[in-house]
Amino acid sequence: MSKIAPTLESLSTPVVLVDLEVARRNIDRFQAYADTHGLKLRPHIKTHKLPAIAEMQLRAGAVGVTCQKVSEAEAMVAGSPDIRDVLITYNILGAEKLKRLTGLARKVALSVVADSQTVVQGLSAAFASEPTPLRVLVECNTGADRCGVPTPESAAALAKSIAGAPGLVFGGLMTYPPANGERAVEAYMSKAKSLIEAADIAVPVITSGGTPSMMHAAEAPTTTEYRPGTYVYNDRSLVARGVCGWEDCALTVLATVVSVPAPNRAIIDAGSKTLTSDLLGLSGFGHILGRPDIAIDQLSEEHGRLVCDGPIGLSVGDRLRIVPNHACVVTNMVDTIQILEGGCPSEVWPVAARGRIV
Amino acid sequence: MSKIAPTLESLSTPVVLVDLEVARRNIDRFQAYADTHGLKLRPHIKTHKLPAIAEMQLRAGAVGVTCQKVSEAEAMVAGSPDIRDVLITYNILGAEKLKRLTGLARKVALSVVADSQTVVQGLSAAFASEPTPLRVLVECNTGADRCGVPTPESAAALAKSIAGAPGLVFGGLMTYPPANGERAVEAYMSKAKSLIEAADIAVPVITSGGTPSMMHAAEAPTTTEYRPGTYVYNDRSLVARGVCGWEDCALTVLATVVSVPAPNRAIIDAGSKTLTSDLLGLSGFGHILGRPDIAIDQLSEEHGRLVCDGPIGLSVGDRLRIVPNHACVVTNMVDTIQILEGGCPSEVWPVAARGRIV
Repeated sequence: MSKIAPTLESLSTPVVLVDLEVARRNIDRFQAYADTHGLKLRPHIKTHKLPAIAEMQLRAGAVGVTCQKVSEAEAMVAGSPDIRDVLITYNILGAEKLKRLTGLARKVALSVVADSQTVVQGLSAAFASEPTPLRVLVECNTGADRCGVPTPESAAALAKSIAGAPGLVFGGLMTYPPANGERAVEAYMSKAKSLIEAADIAVPVITSGGTPSMMHAAEAPTTTEYRPGTYVYNDRSLVARGVCGWEDCALTVLATVVSVPAPNRAIIDAGSKTLTSDLLGLSGFGHILGRPDIAIDQLSEEHGRLVCDGPIGLSVGDRLRIVPNHACVVTNMVDTIQILEGGCPSEVWPVAARGRIV
Repeated sequence: MSKIAPTLESLSTPVVLVDLEVARRNIDRFQAYADTHGLKLRPHIKTHKLPAIAEMQLRAGAVGVTCQKVSEAEAMVAGSPDIRDVLITYNILGAEKLKRLTGLARKVALSVVADSQTVVQGLSAAFASEPTPLRVLVECNTGADRCGVPTPESAAALAKSIAGAPGLVFGGLMTYPPANGERAVEAYMSKAKSLIEAADIAVPVITSGGTPSMMHAAEAPTTTEYRPGTYVYNDRSLVARGVCGWEDCALTVLATVVSVPAPNRAIIDAGSKTLTSDLLGLSGFGHILGRPDIAIDQLSEEHGRLVCDGPIGLSVGDRLRIVPNHACVVTNMVDTIQILEGGCPSEVWPVAARGRIV
């Protein structure tokens, strides 16, 4: 007995679709840029949270992966024997997380970051009696004003602490760059590198990242490694910034019109529990493919409200494909994604590292 | 060998905490209001997504529960033998969902809503050969401009269709009210009720809901049933509206300060993957208990940025408890919540109906 293959029309909605060919093209495009400019690529898995997509990135030439939390790294390492080199770009604190970190370090080449003595001391205490020292990079604030030591001088001071701490080796410098921040990154990193090398400490890695400015990564030539995440799927925020087109958006949400209560208003079955409330500076909560005249002006948890200046021209039961504002947060909402190949539904993949917040 | 009991200091962060005594007090308070005013209470489970909390609501006097999606109802019914009466306040479309709906209807007393002939026809086709007819309420737009038929006349027309459709019985009228909408609800519902009764069709239930205006529910006396959700946990949006105080907020997020990169800035390990980007008209992404001078001004997925006019006075490793803007969406982000009893961590509960979007 053959099972009837699912079609886009037969899928229960809302459902998150990932077109594997588009994802592969996105991976190849930036790998080619990185190769041309001598940059190592270490994609952030926060966008897909999928060992199988990380494997595609590694096969294309990535040197390893980036994770944000210990539990994310655990899920990725457990999910693929090919994931052997992981950078966790986070200050890790607390007995339980440090213990889990030592477990991970026994399995794969592991690096983390730190931006304070408190974090360095905790890492050192946890790794002092481990068989292999932990590589620790200094997180630098090059203008995004999130984490990071404020100046090249403070980066050099923390690098020296790491280099002298039992159980640790200094792994280099890391930053999450500000928008259009290539010059700021270059100024900070080249200065910090000189100061650290002047103390006879090597700076093996200078890692930066972020999809929005990835095509300008080479304009900060001190950078040795780049960590984009969203580039694999792309999203409405990146189309709005001119980084890609709609045809480069590998992730879409398929939704059904459940109500057309007024001539210029319709309601779909995807709300903030699928599309999320992330605006990323945009107006509205996603782009409906083929209907740029419609705005998704309001979300509640399970309803998306569509409005239009003229008649909306939709019927109850119609299906729409939506490019969300922000792809990374959408994959965190669902336990599984529907893979498309040749434009048709193929496999359903569990989102292995979804909800891994610790 | 005794296991060491966890403390708030030993929990890995970020973690979603639910104080069971506060939740119980919130449940009892609104049940008392409903009892006083002769209103039946049918809490929406979207806030907690937990069979055990639904049981607390039923024990206090609720007549049943409200769910938004078929899969949510399935999770709740599977999770508790006490959940025997379920209203799904959603237009249900599509072969797979209709089939699952018939499965549910064989297990519990089930009602759904409809606001179009298309939805009524689908429900009728699915239930025409079922042993028990499905109760279908008409969803009415009383001003919130989401789903719902626009006028009492259109509500009466759809009620007649439902009453005449094979496999269905007319169950009454349902609305999600607009803000301060008691007069609008009363005007719409009393008119629709008269029109339907004039056609010799009984209107057994008129159900409204929403925590923000719950203490005014009795000001729409035609309403027979109320469906608040958030009241069980409360949140910053409800404190801002004057509905409750901080001491009534049962759900908090415990986070750790992971960086203090500037005198007036700190970073916590809870970002949009825990607190969500829901603003609900507020400024900032949550309220830090005991530190009203600090704003959470920016979230990325795993970082929350805290800013302050003066020195922030926090150290790396400090722990903070945050009341999120919107409790319902936070429980959707995590696989488990940490229960507090007597202010201390007791059990960890899986969020049974998390991510149930179909």
